[in-house]
Amino acid sequence: MSFPLRNSNFIINTLLILITPLLFIISTSPTTTSSSPFPINVWPKPTTFRWPHPRRALLLSPAFSISSPNHRHLAAAATRYLRLIHTEHHRPLVPPPAALVNASAAPLQALSVHVSDLTAPLAHGADESYSLTVPAGGGAARLTARTVWGAMRGLETFSQLVWGDPSAVAVGVDIEDSPDYGHRGVMLDTSRNYYPVEDILRTIAAMSANKLNVFHWHITDSHSFPLVVPSEPELAAKGSYGSDMVYTPDDVKRIVEFGFDHGVRVVPEIDSPAHTGSWAEAYPDIVTCANKFWWPAGAKWEDRFASEPGTGQLNPLKPNTYKVLRNLINDVVRLFPEPFFHAGADEINPNCWKSDPTVHSFLSNGGTLSQLLEIFVNKTLPEVVSRNKTVVYWEDVLLSDVVKVDSKFLPKESVVLQTWNNGHNNTKRIVSSGYRVIVSSAEFYYLDCGHGDFLGNNSASDDQSGSTTGNGGSWCGPFKTWQVIYNYDIDYGLSEEEKRLVLGGEVALWSEQADGTVLDSRVWPRASAMAETLWSGNRDESGKKRYAEATDRLNEWRSRMVRRGVGAEPIQPLWCVRNTGMCNTVNVA
Amino acid sequence: MSFPLRNSNFIINTLLILITPLLFIISTSPTTTSSSPFPINVWPKPTTFRWPHPRRALLLSPAFSISSPNHRHLAAAATRYLRLIHTEHHRPLVPPPAALVNASAAPLQALSVHVSDLTAPLAHGADESYSLTVPAGGGAARLTARTVWGAMRGLETFSQLVWGDPSAVAVGVDIEDSPDYGHRGVMLDTSRNYYPVEDILRTIAAMSANKLNVFHWHITDSHSFPLVVPSEPELAAKGSYGSDMVYTPDDVKRIVEFGFDHGVRVVPEIDSPAHTGSWAEAYPDIVTCANKFWWPAGAKWEDRFASEPGTGQLNPLKPNTYKVLRNLINDVVRLFPEPFFHAGADEINPNCWKSDPTVHSFLSNGGTLSQLLEIFVNKTLPEVVSRNKTVVYWEDVLLSDVVKVDSKFLPKESVVLQTWNNGHNNTKRIVSSGYRVIVSSAEFYYLDCGHGDFLGNNSASDDQSGSTTGNGGSWCGPFKTWQVIYNYDIDYGLSEEEKRLVLGGEVALWSEQADGTVLDSRVWPRASAMAETLWSGNRDESGKKRYAEATDRLNEWRSRMVRRGVGAEPIQPLWCVRNTGMCNTVNVA
Repeated sequence: MSFPLRNSNFIINTLLILITPLLFIISTSPTTTSSSPFPINVWPKPTTFRWPHPRRALLLSPAFSISSPNHRHLAAAATRYLRLIHTEHHRPLVPPPAALVNASAAPLQALSVHVSDLTAPLAHGADESYSLTVPAGGGAARLTARTVWGAMRGLETFSQLVWGDPSAVAVGVDIEDSPDYGHRGVMLDTSRNYYPVEDILRTIAAMSANKLNVFHWHITDSHSFPLVVPSEPELAAKGSYGSDMVYTPDDVKRIVEFGFDHGVRVVPEIDSPAHTGSWAEAYPDIVTCANKFWWPAGAKWEDRFASEPGTGQLNPLKPNTYKVLRNLINDVVRLFPEPFFHAGADEINPNCWKSDPTVHSFLSNGGTLSQLLEIFVNKTLPEVVSRNKTVVYWEDVLLSDVVKVDSKFLPKESVVLQTWNNGHNNTKRIVSSGYRVIVSSAEFYYLDCGHGDFLGNNSASDDQSGSTTGNGGSWCGPFKTWQVIYNYDIDYGLSEEEKRLVLGGEVALWSEQADGTVLDSRVWPRASAMAETLWSGNRDESGKKRYAEATDRLNEWRSRMVRRGVGAEPIQPLWCVRNTGMCNTVNVA
Repeated sequence: MSFPLRNSNFIINTLLILITPLLFIISTSPTTTSSSPFPINVWPKPTTFRWPHPRRALLLSPAFSISSPNHRHLAAAATRYLRLIHTEHHRPLVPPPAALVNASAAPLQALSVHVSDLTAPLAHGADESYSLTVPAGGGAARLTARTVWGAMRGLETFSQLVWGDPSAVAVGVDIEDSPDYGHRGVMLDTSRNYYPVEDILRTIAAMSANKLNVFHWHITDSHSFPLVVPSEPELAAKGSYGSDMVYTPDDVKRIVEFGFDHGVRVVPEIDSPAHTGSWAEAYPDIVTCANKFWWPAGAKWEDRFASEPGTGQLNPLKPNTYKVLRNLINDVVRLFPEPFFHAGADEINPNCWKSDPTVHSFLSNGGTLSQLLEIFVNKTLPEVVSRNKTVVYWEDVLLSDVVKVDSKFLPKESVVLQTWNNGHNNTKRIVSSGYRVIVSSAEFYYLDCGHGDFLGNNSASDDQSGSTTGNGGSWCGPFKTWQVIYNYDIDYGLSEEEKRLVLGGEVALWSEQADGTVLDSRVWPRASAMAETLWSGNRDESGKKRYAEATDRLNEWRSRMVRRGVGAEPIQPLWCVRNTGMCNTVNVA
């Protein structure tokens, strides 16, 4: 289990690592001893992490156990973590000093978990704070939390203090921890390409390991309708990619339950009225412009039928639209206990609606496109709100230049807006209007960007000049690196009052060019970067952005994720983490 | 095994598919019936593919067998393909018309393979042509080739004519096929991050399926030296990332043998004199500037010690340099029977050499940096050439602005240059100087580009303005899409005489931000795009670039690769291939 020393300067580096924090303690706060890239770390970095020098570790007893209060989901988590802790045997990329582990002392015997409120539901605002103490003298570690969800965060933290074979655990550790933002999510589009249930479960498990707590499931779109809805079975029967590419009610139940066991909310999105081409397979009468060619020859960009191939929008004037939607909402609400319901409402295309005769006559009689959307919202929003749900819409519903709803139809207590355009500007517009916001700026948080264009015959890619500038055909290119994501401040430029309306953020994977084969590497470790920024920020104690210090830790955390079966992509040569600081630059930092 | 029809226009599309080629036959050549996106295809597209209408298919007999001449590697290939053909059961993304398969006729019983020259070695210029006939009436298919390597190409083609469960096979098919270029490769860097042997084998197998024939193995570099060299064991013992991250002679033997069984040459690259920092762990005396910080604070870009973190260059003035190199070359030549030997010679850094006292006094006495390189080349090139090897160098050795060798020291009959800078310009410079060239232009063929910067503390990524332009911190960004790769004409702007010096091309995966977790998705299907362009070109019969038509076929081929265990990334929503042409644009094509 030992690595040969690759570089003669390794020992010097290690000594520096051991010395640096010591100096740091003297000069600053004693709560900040984890600012060095010591190989034993927790990701995301806890708000307070005390492991005083000399650092100590003990072996983990082969009989190590976890005791926890009687709660179905917490028990599932405790069982899972107990197995992980005993079997993971993570090898840090840089081996910790052998002297760290006192193998002759009594091993750590147990972790006891204490929760003061076992009834707090998994919902936005749930208290996720926890305290974890691993006594230097061994015996039993103690984890206390207000809620079972906070306890799960603490279990994850404990698991990251364990490494090696035989398993060792950091002791003399004292952690107080809680997140900066309550909403920390990953959005996955399962319509453009299908993802097997196992892919979704693996993603939720990895989210939980990163202390992310919202799986925003963009289930349906114009390309396929994979959700089997009991009262509207034709939607998936005709609109899915095939009977082997659907999510049955049992699948959903499994995913939701898995989410609870991992402290991850599963927020469903049924995108409408746009992005509904696939609904037309079952209900052609309620969808306008379905299966049209998206951008007819010679048409201007504003005259296309959709933002991308795959046309179709629900017709707000057809009574049957609401019959289908009512059934759908009813079933989705039943399938997803989560208090948030994402209703989409992005990218409504004027031309698609206008192409329909009923809409055409509505407009001829003085109606407007925005009135059409208001009709739609006024008929559907109450359906959802009456079931005690908060409705999340994409920002377009309020901010679109073309088709939008007056804010009087969007009650602030029931509506949350998710921003994706114009970076900080739209976040500001939303919160200054008094709405709560979830931040998913495409320029920072869209994980699909930078892999080019999926159009089948775009001649722009036939260019022999070999330019290395430009976005490579990707509307939201370049690729959003982990550094860009890590450094993004979602409350940049907001007043204190406005900041309180920022619920948190979500990285998003749209699936034009993604499916299960690339899921892990597209999401991880870039979602980890956001996870830390939204949990404990991206700055060190002096207020300086800590991306440099985060690099080594993220290398290490990525390696542990890979060991846990998540195919996260590497961010550096292994050489860099073995030679701390040598892959930095001093000339642009 | 049937897919529900997702769109009502599917049937119409299918009819169009069936009709279109028929019209095409009438208007143009009868050898071009595969220009429609019919779900049964071969990738790369054969030069001549006849499957006249009405297309027919038969079941494959459960007793289907392959007979082939007695040749170790061909026998291994035949055994492998026989198993694949019986067990793959590929499901085309768009199901072929059910009527295609005549299930009541006698199934296809056998494939007989005939080779006229069983002794032709696997080397550049080996004849890879083959003819394949699958008679419409069933019985036995016949594959003829000049060499066993051509026969392997034909076996692959046959395997792609088989689909479904029970297995069906296209019949009445007549194929004449041979490649446009003899050198069609993938370069993999196993130094910056390590790849397990299984990853390399999977890559070679996937290459063979794409009719690629050169695995260019960039084994060593400054970051690690993973190759265990019997006569210089310290190089890996001290220079590798660890004893579990090396390639032993047995590993190499296995990889080389696997290459022969797949018709894939394994060309080793021992990069020197630059990119040798890892050698210093065993031999600090022969490496200049090892383990220096790569770009000291305040230094100009031209005063850095290496192009990226990881410094070190062999010292051409130390006798021991050549003692080590002689041993190394001797062993590498024994380990790799391949006639090409890649000796690197890229990115020589003046400052790194200058920092050494012996070099300093050489320069003080009137010597030049280029003379230093000439000394190095003159001492090492003959070592390799005398062993009947052709030496491949990166273009820098001839074209560098800073340190280069006079062409008189680079005999054209023994030296091939590999270009990576300045797109077509450097290709032209090389061939117009009379050298043979392998094309790996970074602007088109570098698979690692576009994933940002790996430096640990680059403050450039802390930018709240959210620009969607620029290369995202990647020196060679944006990401090279499959379309960019497919459209690249490696002989662009060359005279007919110059074109004859273009051996072919290689896509390259440098591993700063890659390892086994992302290998498949970084390489595939983008390497497939190059594979077709170098095999049968990127134009249709009318001379028009065929990227539009290739899109559906590449979707299909990518899906078959995934079924074969290669995690190739998706290029479109499944909806696009199910709705042919609907994801095109008519406005920029």
